[in-house]
Amino acid sequence: MPGNTFGKSFSITTFGESHGIAVGVIIDGLPPGIEISEEEIQIEMNRRKPGQSSVTTPRKESDKVTIVSGIFEGKTTGTPFTVILYNSDARPSAYDNIKDLFRPGHADFTYFNKYGIRDYRGSGRASGRETAGRVAAGAVAKKMLSENNITIKAYTLEAAGIRCGEIDLDIIEDNAMRAADSKAAEEMIKKVEKLAEEGNSAGGIVECVIKNVPTGLGEPVFDKIDADLAKAVISLGGVKGIEFGAGFEASKMLGTEHNDWMDKNGFKTNNAGGIIGGITTGCDIVFRIAVKPTSSIEQAQKTIDINGNEKEIITTGRHDPCLTPRIVPVVESMAAITIADHLLRYRAQGKA
Amino acid sequence: MPGNTFGKSFSITTFGESHGIAVGVIIDGLPPGIEISEEEIQIEMNRRKPGQSSVTTPRKESDKVTIVSGIFEGKTTGTPFTVILYNSDARPSAYDNIKDLFRPGHADFTYFNKYGIRDYRGSGRASGRETAGRVAAGAVAKKMLSENNITIKAYTLEAAGIRCGEIDLDIIEDNAMRAADSKAAEEMIKKVEKLAEEGNSAGGIVECVIKNVPTGLGEPVFDKIDADLAKAVISLGGVKGIEFGAGFEASKMLGTEHNDWMDKNGFKTNNAGGIIGGITTGCDIVFRIAVKPTSSIEQAQKTIDINGNEKEIITTGRHDPCLTPRIVPVVESMAAITIADHLLRYRAQGKA
Amino acid sequence: MPGNTFGKSFSITTFGESHGIAVGVIIDGLPPGIEISEEEIQIEMNRRKPGQSSVTTPRKESDKVTIVSGIFEGKTTGTPFTVILYNSDARPSAYDNIKDLFRPGHADFTYFNKYGIRDYRGSGRASGRETAGRVAAGAVAKKMLSENNITIKAYTLEAAGIRCGEIDLDIIEDNAMRAADSKAAEEMIKKVEKLAEEGNSAGGIVECVIKNVPTGLGEPVFDKIDADLAKAVISLGGVKGIEFGAGFEASKMLGTEHNDWMDKNGFKTNNAGGIIGGITTGCDIVFRIAVKPTSSIEQAQKTIDINGNEKEIITTGRHDPCLTPRIVPVVESMAAITIADHLLRYRAQGKA
Amino acid sequence: MPGNTFGKSFSITTFGESHGIAVGVIIDGLPPGIEISEEEIQIEMNRRKPGQSSVTTPRKESDKVTIVSGIFEGKTTGTPFTVILYNSDARPSAYDNIKDLFRPGHADFTYFNKYGIRDYRGSGRASGRETAGRVAAGAVAKKMLSENNITIKAYTLEAAGIRCGEIDLDIIEDNAMRAADSKAAEEMIKKVEKLAEEGNSAGGIVECVIKNVPTGLGEPVFDKIDADLAKAVISLGGVKGIEFGAGFEASKMLGTEHNDWMDKNGFKTNNAGGIIGGITTGCDIVFRIAVKPTSSIEQAQKTIDINGNEKEIITTGRHDPCLTPRIVPVVESMAAITIADHLLRYRAQGKA
Repeated sequence: MPGNTFGKSFSITTFGESHGIAVGVIIDGLPPGIEISEEEIQIEMNRRKPGQSSVTTPRKESDKVTIVSGIFEGKTTGTPFTVILYNSDARPSAYDNIKDLFRPGHADFTYFNKYGIRDYRGSGRASGRETAGRVAAGAVAKKMLSENNITIKAYTLEAAGIRCGEIDLDIIEDNAMRAADSKAAEEMIKKVEKLAEEGNSAGGIVECVIKNVPTGLGEPVFDKIDADLAKAVISLGGVKGIEFGAGFEASKMLGTEHNDWMDKNGFKTNNAGGIIGGITTGCDIVFRIAVKPTSSIEQAQKTIDINGNEKEIITTGRHDPCLTPRIVPVVESMAAITIADHLLRYRAQGKA
Repeated sequence: MPGNTFGKSFSITTFGESHGIAVGVIIDGLPPGIEISEEEIQIEMNRRKPGQSSVTTPRKESDKVTIVSGIFEGKTTGTPFTVILYNSDARPSAYDNIKDLFRPGHADFTYFNKYGIRDYRGSGRASGRETAGRVAAGAVAKKMLSENNITIKAYTLEAAGIRCGEIDLDIIEDNAMRAADSKAAEEMIKKVEKLAEEGNSAGGIVECVIKNVPTGLGEPVFDKIDADLAKAVISLGGVKGIEFGAGFEASKMLGTEHNDWMDKNGFKTNNAGGIIGGITTGCDIVFRIAVKPTSSIEQAQKTIDINGNEKEIITTGRHDPCLTPRIVPVVESMAAITIADHLLRYRAQGKA
Repeated sequence: MPGNTFGKSFSITTFGESHGIAVGVIIDGLPPGIEISEEEIQIEMNRRKPGQSSVTTPRKESDKVTIVSGIFEGKTTGTPFTVILYNSDARPSAYDNIKDLFRPGHADFTYFNKYGIRDYRGSGRASGRETAGRVAAGAVAKKMLSENNITIKAYTLEAAGIRCGEIDLDIIEDNAMRAADSKAAEEMIKKVEKLAEEGNSAGGIVECVIKNVPTGLGEPVFDKIDADLAKAVISLGGVKGIEFGAGFEASKMLGTEHNDWMDKNGFKTNNAGGIIGGITTGCDIVFRIAVKPTSSIEQAQKTIDINGNEKEIITTGRHDPCLTPRIVPVVESMAAITIADHLLRYRAQGKA
Repeated sequence: MPGNTFGKSFSITTFGESHGIAVGVIIDGLPPGIEISEEEIQIEMNRRKPGQSSVTTPRKESDKVTIVSGIFEGKTTGTPFTVILYNSDARPSAYDNIKDLFRPGHADFTYFNKYGIRDYRGSGRASGRETAGRVAAGAVAKKMLSENNITIKAYTLEAAGIRCGEIDLDIIEDNAMRAADSKAAEEMIKKVEKLAEEGNSAGGIVECVIKNVPTGLGEPVFDKIDADLAKAVISLGGVKGIEFGAGFEASKMLGTEHNDWMDKNGFKTNNAGGIIGGITTGCDIVFRIAVKPTSSIEQAQKTIDINGNEKEIITTGRHDPCLTPRIVPVVESMAAITIADHLLRYRAQGKA
């Protein structure tokens, strides 16, 4: 049973390797009649693309969007909606020196053991480049959700140990870290730039807030909306944890502290993070993810080669010293796809 | 698209409400020829069942296992394997006084809004009793995995703010908290008993360790094994977060600290928690979950009724003051089902 | 990937063997708020059950319906709807003499080879008894479809070489063959009774007509509604072919003869059988299936045993001399389930 | 729940419209290590492409195969295998005169009613061109199956009322009709050419034979291999029926005639068509399909426009006067994909 499709009603299948011909995505289940253009998708692609600042990789990828199918006279037709992004700036020869080595923290070892064959050029299918297809699909999902006024915003809450204080959703795109606090952003940038110089990398935490979700999305008992969001986001490379609402803090709370009370205006608190019993409450959905430090670092590390010989490796190349700024649009995309999926599933379940 | 099935190859569907006739599970995809008895399943059921100690609910459920199909002369046949557990000790009238009220922290409000109808008797489908079917399936999955020497152990790592020190996997079943540290267990019990007396409840953290998993399980890019484990476990009521390996700590680490190096004996550390790129490395899979404090507490809380009128509610009844001891076998079950599913999927993908 | 679930939105999973404890079905995806009772389901069960007449098996099965979950105060709740039918009149010892023999025309050989284990008691999972679960689900699907005025009628069009002349849908339940022509029915009964006396069996053709289906059901390009109906019906034991509208006759027609023209009142003919491009046209859906003669006959036949030794076998027991009368409600059920599934899928695809 | 994916383990998703940028396919679940080249796929594409003879459409489509992903150094990698075929010779303006008319026999009416939007250029998604992706995937499936010696051959058994006498599988590619009898082929060609001149079209029957299938493929009770083959093939435009083995003839047979007996050399007859109880017996799988006459004919027909006005229409253009020659490779492809899918599923179900 293959694993490259996500979503049961709004269903995406991504394809492509970082140094092959192209990457892309098919959306199946997209309702007809939605106006969407390559330009709109391009805007989201540009948020994800490398080379945006000093805290992201200087690698260049044009990430030019081509809609291949599923559209007619500017509107979706209800047939598979395909977006393709041709690869450019591929330098496969740059990987010749590591083609027999397993880079620490990378999926080289596991792919080699699973498939018995390994596309060593820039991580192949395990590359972050695979997420380009997800972001293209996410842009379409966001457009669809916008018709229901649903909005999704993610941001760097913490990076390299520095945490945002007050959260201001309006300034996220104004700083290279996509942090929600300008002052914290400045500190983060300084710290990450310094780590980059040292050939090191930093982890962080990204928070995501989804507003105006109707009550009733989520299909218990397994396809609960938090379960599906967790799967969606943990499926991203480098994400090592997720928590909803009060999250791990909830484990330290008492029932008297954690329960969200209601009055006639609705919920008075949102420790649940907008989801109870796997179904949306109508409050904001709030979740946070743990992002590990980038695996590619320019320092000597110990590893083995495919024959089991012990080796030393330095991963030169062009890498993000901190993943959080570029993972922000990807997290938003996976959230948008999950919510879009459940919105369609919700519609199917109306009383007969 | 309905949501009561989990797993694509080892596929379980649960059914039943807490105060209906029965709860149960169908396993589809179970290979033929596995020896399994009602007694073996009963052992796991007994670990989950209420009334075990002072830190769990005094409610009685016999949870007697009946295998209804899929077995012949003591062995599985490859056809759907069904287990049914008839409900007993149901006291639906106990719920009459709350049938129009939304209990804080419970799924009453969301179910009512989603379905327009609400089985108010003991939470209906949203009840923890639904997990009985999961544990029955988990017992079968564990049996199947035991043929590959794979073992799964979960335990209370933290409860009511008290955390285990040294981890001893052999003492878990010896204390009522299912903690991995006897001394911490004693403190937890005292604290939880006191909270129970006060009509309050506590949260906690459960850790799960899976040993002897072969390298290569997991289907990128969406059905990564960590993504599927996350979905499996977040689909449990009361679980508000999950983290793998170093988890949220990874967000504070540097690349030089987090990367797991290899030598000819294998990985030297396991910050990855046994999974890289969504595929098992062969190291122990390690994850932790955040469990919220039980929603049912015997203290006055503010809520509304189905007509929007503001009300006060005290949830009397028989509830767990801390969920961690009884969630332990459920977490193990969901982990076993997920690993069994991926083991079968792995087999399908051998070179043609 | 297991195979005991059918339908993506209205999704049924059947379980159970003919001589085990019970057979049954779970419906997942059933919308909430549908009124349905055990009595209503029982009516359909009684149409399928054995022992109805001289042209069906004299075997007795009470087929008593128990709704185990998914219902509250007489209405569906949106949670898994489970029906169980306990087995009675099981005489497993009746099968002792054939437990090592492969009965000609039966699935004994293929099950034994596939699973390496064989529940020889009355065909186990391959028994026609498995369809009891399908009929229970079909009764629920029919109830749901009745809210949209959709009706489904199947009948014996031909049996033992005798074909109905004029079709009268109102007399189907009035004759033991469930034929749509009383005179032909009489002849069929005489012929089938004679074959039964000789220890032989007959095949036949069943036609099914679905009325008041809205235009637009069916999900190209693979889940076309005719493709799904074909799968649904070919999945029944003994069905060897299906054709829609003009069917195999279409292969002999010219374009000028086959095309259905339209005028302002709609389609003027219905060679298409109510489906074009895999989507319903709004005309009646019409299909026919080929039913093979019952495999169990009381005459000496050549076969082998599980060790490959050549043997002679006479299948004594209680069998239907012609399957068509009892397959009629099963075909209706599979059609109802398929249409219900597509109705829910259609709802999900409304413009955003 | 969308419908553009087929297969649960060897899973294909097709995309694209006849006059859009491209059509294509993603195969997910393809095992790693299979050698496959664009040239090998191209061979199958060329069998399907238009413009081959006087009995097929003179339309030109280059159908040039590009493998976009899933391959490395000539071998499959286990990641999604994508093939794209850019559209050429598109003449959308040729369709301007029919853009508001529903062509008889075409899916114009149903697509318009379902989606509320219609890509009128050459049938859009409902075009036979969509099958190009299926054939590309079929070529890969055939390659994979060839490693197990499984071969698949389809041919025109009957066209325009002329039926093959003796079947000779070796001459199929030697005549324009892809018939299995040279003499019948000549007659067919004459008849079809004459019909083409008259602006008319003919239907036919295609038979498919699959050899060397191992015993045990097929997943009862719904994913029986005949049920899945039926779905696979009925999902093709223009196919109105399918029958296995004795097929509709079985409905006229007695049990004494239809049952396939066994001796120590195996089955002595194959009325079952290689499948019993939905599982392969090891005999040849044999099925036949009914193909309707091509809907596009150059004769005046009655129809309506999108506003309900009655109109006359003549479908000029470049169309196949008989579909059977070009549907042969498509039927083989769908059969290959279905068998490949079940081969992978079979592997997953080995005893634990």
